[in-house]
Amino acid sequence: MSAFRIGRLALFGVGLIGGSFAAALKAAGAVERVVGVGRGRANLERALALKVIDEIAPDPPTAVEGADLVLVAVPVQQTATVLASFAPRLSATTVVTDAGSTKQDVIAAARAALGADIRQFVPAHPIAGAELTGVDAAKATLYKGRTVIVTPLPETDARMTHIVEAAWQACDARIVRMTPERHDAVFAAVSHLPHALAFALVRMMASRSDAGELFDHAGAGFRDFTRIAGSSPEMWRDICIGNRAALLAELDAYANELASLRAAIAAQDSAAIERTFSEARAARSRWLDSGR
Amino acid sequence: MSAFRIGRLALFGVGLIGGSFAAALKAAGAVERVVGVGRGRANLERALALKVIDEIAPDPPTAVEGADLVLVAVPVQQTATVLASFAPRLSATTVVTDAGSTKQDVIAAARAALGADIRQFVPAHPIAGAELTGVDAAKATLYKGRTVIVTPLPETDARMTHIVEAAWQACDARIVRMTPERHDAVFAAVSHLPHALAFALVRMMASRSDAGELFDHAGAGFRDFTRIAGSSPEMWRDICIGNRAALLAELDAYANELASLRAAIAAQDSAAIERTFSEARAARSRWLDSGR
Repeated sequence: MSAFRIGRLALFGVGLIGGSFAAALKAAGAVERVVGVGRGRANLERALALKVIDEIAPDPPTAVEGADLVLVAVPVQQTATVLASFAPRLSATTVVTDAGSTKQDVIAAARAALGADIRQFVPAHPIAGAELTGVDAAKATLYKGRTVIVTPLPETDARMTHIVEAAWQACDARIVRMTPERHDAVFAAVSHLPHALAFALVRMMASRSDAGELFDHAGAGFRDFTRIAGSSPEMWRDICIGNRAALLAELDAYANELASLRAAIAAQDSAAIERTFSEARAARSRWLDSGR
Repeated sequence: MSAFRIGRLALFGVGLIGGSFAAALKAAGAVERVVGVGRGRANLERALALKVIDEIAPDPPTAVEGADLVLVAVPVQQTATVLASFAPRLSATTVVTDAGSTKQDVIAAARAALGADIRQFVPAHPIAGAELTGVDAAKATLYKGRTVIVTPLPETDARMTHIVEAAWQACDARIVRMTPERHDAVFAAVSHLPHALAFALVRMMASRSDAGELFDHAGAGFRDFTRIAGSSPEMWRDICIGNRAALLAELDAYANELASLRAAIAAQDSAAIERTFSEARAARSRWLDSGR
């Protein structure tokens, strides 16, 4: 049982990410009451039945009233609208955080919506990607051993940053601090780019006149390579747009990498091709050995 | 117990693919004696100890002497050398087949090495990719329910094609016939391209000065996306060169697909991005529902 305890948590977006946060805090005895608000009434009723939330707020201002912590866990492009929906009624002691996969765009939205209250906003990103969505997939153990990136701003109230970090630690997550710029560059490379590549490959194959025969011969390698193309199109559309500067740079770097490989194959340069593949296998092997 | 039975099987390359073929035929009681030959003495000794093979041949001509079936299961660029090593001593009744991941280049090598004996060569490709290599990974059940593509030539002796198909069926594999051209086009798209893409992504990340931090934040999605970059660099170098015409066409098509996605992201065209991602997810979901 954690000594840390939140009286009232307001959850905007009660899906896998928000629902698992609430469930983990409840399991740790670190929250008293969870109030949910969101677009889908059926989903909120389901969250209530699953006891992930304790009540459904009729509207955003009511949800944040008396809340100690507000978690915004919606597709990142909706952040501005959600924050604006309760900003005028935000108490000066309420901590606001998010779970968005991109940070610079979320922060820009928060600055616009919150004005001087930006000091109450603690940008964060729990790394717990899954193709599953919705509150039915939520579970108290989702964040156990996972990393949560916290990207405080110069204006952020340091005590509020500590409250958000304590909440995630109560979920058994590990905290890593980064600047928003660094966060966006790192995840453009290790997450956003691979998602874009996987979606693009499947779409290309699906668009062919012989798609049926192609998929008929796709095997286990293809299945794993494209697993992330099973992710939410809406969520990933928002991430691609939200982090477009870093993602476009990665797409360009990757296009260059592919062009080099293409040239080596066209030239039948066995040594260059094998060097590329060997470097990749060795790097991946070291990474797996480091505990992945 | 199969009614089909091979007296003597000669195995060139006693690794995962060749070793599993021998083990499966033995388990089915469909082979009497297996003789192995290859570059690594230690590996052959190991195969003997595991009873995957019954004897080690001192040289290629001895290996094929009295053999009913010869399986060449080596990296595809070595096919010509291996076939030439026994071609002059090949009996007119011995069936020769291969397990190469590319077919047109293997067939060209076979034509050059075998001359008029090309009628004894049955090109085949068992689809059982795995990052594991070596005879220790070999198992009698590797081909159970898997597909083996058989690409007979106009000159191929039809009875010999049936023998090869019967052998694979004794391993519980499913036979699909295709032309060599079609085989190479299909596997360039569903297998060779994804492997090239995965190797390229890992190599690009590994080459960065901040590679350590990047890998530190790579998660489950990255792990699955790059699983095939754990494959044998030597084998995949050969496949890329052997099937370069079809693979280069796929790399170009993919570069175009990525360029379209890049343009949509740069233009912040939400609808186009979401359409791409939704089409991909729907196609993959239909594929999985069809039994993958």
